[in-house]
Amino acid sequence: MKFEVLGKDSRTRARRGRLHLAHGIVETPVFMPVGTQGTVKGMTPEQLQSLSVQILLCNSYHLMLRPGQDTIARLGGLHGFMKWDRPILTDSGGYQVFSLSKFRKVSENGVMFQSHLDGTTYTLTPETSMDLQVALGADIIMPLDDCLAYPASPEAAAQSMRRSMEWARRCSDRFRELAPISQNLFGIVQGSVYPELRKESAERLIEIGFPGYAVGGLAVGEPNTVMYDVMEQLEPYLPEDKPRYLMGVGTPEDLVECVARGVDMFDCVMPTRHARNGWLFTREGHIAIKQAAYKEDDRPIDEGCGCPVCTKHSRAYLRHLFMAGEILSSILNTVHNLYFYLDTMDRIRQFIEFRRFDEFLAQVRNRQIRRS
Amino acid sequence: MKFEVLGKDSRTRARRGRLHLAHGIVETPVFMPVGTQGTVKGMTPEQLQSLSVQILLCNSYHLMLRPGQDTIARLGGLHGFMKWDRPILTDSGGYQVFSLSKFRKVSENGVMFQSHLDGTTYTLTPETSMDLQVALGADIIMPLDDCLAYPASPEAAAQSMRRSMEWARRCSDRFRELAPISQNLFGIVQGSVYPELRKESAERLIEIGFPGYAVGGLAVGEPNTVMYDVMEQLEPYLPEDKPRYLMGVGTPEDLVECVARGVDMFDCVMPTRHARNGWLFTREGHIAIKQAAYKEDDRPIDEGCGCPVCTKHSRAYLRHLFMAGEILSSILNTVHNLYFYLDTMDRIRQFIEFRRFDEFLAQVRNRQIRRS
Repeated sequence: MKFEVLGKDSRTRARRGRLHLAHGIVETPVFMPVGTQGTVKGMTPEQLQSLSVQILLCNSYHLMLRPGQDTIARLGGLHGFMKWDRPILTDSGGYQVFSLSKFRKVSENGVMFQSHLDGTTYTLTPETSMDLQVALGADIIMPLDDCLAYPASPEAAAQSMRRSMEWARRCSDRFRELAPISQNLFGIVQGSVYPELRKESAERLIEIGFPGYAVGGLAVGEPNTVMYDVMEQLEPYLPEDKPRYLMGVGTPEDLVECVARGVDMFDCVMPTRHARNGWLFTREGHIAIKQAAYKEDDRPIDEGCGCPVCTKHSRAYLRHLFMAGEILSSILNTVHNLYFYLDTMDRIRQFIEFRRFDEFLAQVRNRQIRRS
Repeated sequence: MKFEVLGKDSRTRARRGRLHLAHGIVETPVFMPVGTQGTVKGMTPEQLQSLSVQILLCNSYHLMLRPGQDTIARLGGLHGFMKWDRPILTDSGGYQVFSLSKFRKVSENGVMFQSHLDGTTYTLTPETSMDLQVALGADIIMPLDDCLAYPASPEAAAQSMRRSMEWARRCSDRFRELAPISQNLFGIVQGSVYPELRKESAERLIEIGFPGYAVGGLAVGEPNTVMYDVMEQLEPYLPEDKPRYLMGVGTPEDLVECVARGVDMFDCVMPTRHARNGWLFTREGHIAIKQAAYKEDDRPIDEGCGCPVCTKHSRAYLRHLFMAGEILSSILNTVHNLYFYLDTMDRIRQFIEFRRFDEFLAQVRNRQIRRS
């Protein structure tokens, strides 16, 4: 993997970069749509490509449970299974074990848990997490980490972070042993909202050495200003020549604010999940498509939007589809929201290139203030 | 509306025709996918176009209840509302009143019923059915008819048929009064499985005069050989120069058998509904994609199929999507099944053109025998 920093903004920490992966080039800052179970809900691979999705995130946890790592490996890995030939990133499954499984028991060795589907018991250790993700074959894979609830005391956060760092070392060892061709293991910085712990975590990871550094344990319920502060304080300790990935973030405003704090990569279910719930993003805020006000509204979701939905369909039709529970409601809403997110990232990249990212940031902040 | 009979098969009653409608030309025999609530479930208008769908059927009953005829009329009629610029046919809603509504009361005047959605009371008469369908603006509309359960006694069938014929006359009168530009009202032959009643019904309709004749009250539970016989006995009484539409039919074999008996138009929820239930059509019969046998099957649904799903995805992936309850399962399965139906119609048209339809019919019958 090669990462180039193509340019930097002078007034913020924003960077314009390029990631070279086995399945293609990723222009950063980048947003990765989430394809939990080997599909972005409601989207065909062709639709994702036509939306210029550069890289997808898939969840190891879900794929391990169903259809299982051996099945996917035999069908050509995730790329062959899904017929997605652009880059993929898989998470370790740790977060889903903590948020979805019925029962779990964490020890120094790893985590034992019961499937949320049928109660079957599984064990995930740093080593088996690597085996799983090497079988899936994503371009970027993540180490198993200990996921902490928010808020956490400094003591609990320290203990959890140190366990995650020990697991990161074991993941790195196992990964080097397996030495998969064309895969890359990132490190994940933990330490909750405590700057000293974040710094310690970053230093420990850098000592092990990774081609990219993720920031985990944020967007777990803390106010977003806290998240921005953590990111801002951590950023100087992250290597400049490696990509930084903020996991599970966030709103369109979060993306802009965190790019300003040096983040290169994001993933979040927000555009796709909100789409299915009829919550549609626009540059002037969001609209809830079920509202009666849209019953005969023949305008598009967002009059300035160039997406395939806004250039064709009315709010009235989209409201009808939503109220009728039609599959096409999820499809069209997802196309629009993903377009909105990807278009936002495209603008961010352009503004950084033109050395005017601070203007874009100011615009977004002004809109935010006007709305609130 | 103009209908041309381009050619006839010499050994069967199959015809190759062309229907000129306000929104485009329809090559017959044709299969019309069902877009119940103003969308073919799981399909974008672009996907339907790329599958070469020529004409869609929409259900007046559903659209009357939600979003309502005035809303659709204000948004440019069904074509403007759905953004579908090819022909549309709407049914009268009669069938859904009989099959879906919670409560109904039929009189000579029409039918009063309660919405299956919220219990609101509606009345549909021949006249209001025309008002509704003129507001929706489909290229072809259907008269309100009295829908009979199967089996029915000759007396009950005669009474119901005569009521439907009286309603057809009232629909025709109302339609002439409204005189909508670019819409066409078909007649519907009723009479259950009784040849004399079918003949009487056809004669009464011809007396009123319609640009096309539908056959209703079939595919309601009778054996398909009975349906074929009714169609065969009725066919000589239908005008040769007008299109014939067999409502709600059917399996791929039914289409071929009924084309051989002079039918030009079909509609059915089977390809789309079965798709969502994981039942996929192939030339060698069907497959139920949930079967464990497909867990690691990397073959396409149908090895001879040229559809966008078969040229890309494996049974294993489709099974996974189905088991995981993913929206993409419904989407891909629907693309395949619709392609299968439309491709079957395409072959039928070609075989009629080449004056070799009887060979195709024999092929289909042989396969049917082999499978049973």
